Amino acid sequence: MAMTVLRLGHRPFRDKRISTHCGLVARAFGASELLYSGEKDSSLEDSINSVSREWGGSFHVRYVRKWKDIIKEFPGKSVHLTMYGLPLQTRIREIRKHQDILVIIGGEKVPSEVYSLSDYNIAVTNQPHSEVAALAVFLHEYFESRELSFDFPEAKKRVIPRERGKLLEEDAEHSP
Amino acid sequence: MAMTVLRLGHRPFRDKRISTHCGLVARAFGASELLYSGEKDSSLEDSINSVSREWGGSFHVRYVRKWKDIIKEFPGKSVHLTMYGLPLQTRIREIRKHQDILVIIGGEKVPSEVYSLSDYNIAVTNQPHSEVAALAVFLHEYFESRELSFDFPEAKKRVIPRERGKLLEEDAEHSP
Repeated sequence: MAMTVLRLGHRPFRDKRISTHCGLVARAFGASELLYSGEKDSSLEDSINSVSREWGGSFHVRYVRKWKDIIKEFPGKSVHLTMYGLPLQTRIREIRKHQDILVIIGGEKVPSEVYSLSDYNIAVTNQPHSEVAALAVFLHEYFESRELSFDFPEAKKRVIPRERGKLLEEDAEHSP
Repeated sequence: MAMTVLRLGHRPFRDKRISTHCGLVARAFGASELLYSGEKDSSLEDSINSVSREWGGSFHVRYVRKWKDIIKEFPGKSVHLTMYGLPLQTRIREIRKHQDILVIIGGEKVPSEVYSLSDYNIAVTNQPHSEVAALAVFLHEYFESRELSFDFPEAKKRVIPRERGKLLEEDAEHSP
């Protein structure tokens, strides 16, 4: 099983925080990899990689120049998240049958080819909102809430859930 | 029933896009109002209000200076979304019993009082990711997916969902 997220058209100055949120959501909600096109941005990669190093798991982030080839050559099904697509709730059962998924999220301007190259164009509501939210709700529905309790092996930091305040468990070798 | 979102500590330069996404997610996923503290930002308000004007519904955005009073005086239950809180899946049934909800989402630094003032501190995974994603998944769970087909009255623009491409219906008086 592979869940890969492809973020299109990243612009380092304008999109850094949104793309970072997309990467962290991809990781936290069970994807194994973030691919991104647009402009290469080492600081985006560093932000996401440093979270992975501290919080465990084996999430990767990778810049890709030829995003069309990524979609065309993907061995599973590609799902483009767009407010113009078919409602998530009408297609999610069918999509869940597939094990290898490439979730595509656009930036400001999505080239029209994305709509034709993707196996599915799916809307998480038909209202304008956020690719970060669309990605999270899609993964949440795909994994049927199981992602809420996924384990991240080899974490150096781990939250101990509490009713009030913060409790963080850290590896002895990384404590002060 | 009132679902209100309170975004803490907005900084116009750094947070504009993330706070805009929070506002648009709040609106698209069934909240009626975004309150925000930090610095007042007319362009944040304009971005969200212009979406509401075009896409319908009666969503409001309002700057608040005294965020503590907002939490203290809220007539329903306040739910602070934080990665340090109790897992969403263990508390959502209980929270759903309440009709009036104030969802609190922080910025970079959340004052520790937020944890004690809130009725619930809830984690959407205990991993670091995004307040935009946490808000979306919380509302999605609270409304049990019904928000995916909420109607937005008096919309000037409406998407006609399609398998490929974009189809947008616009009011005659607003067409070119």
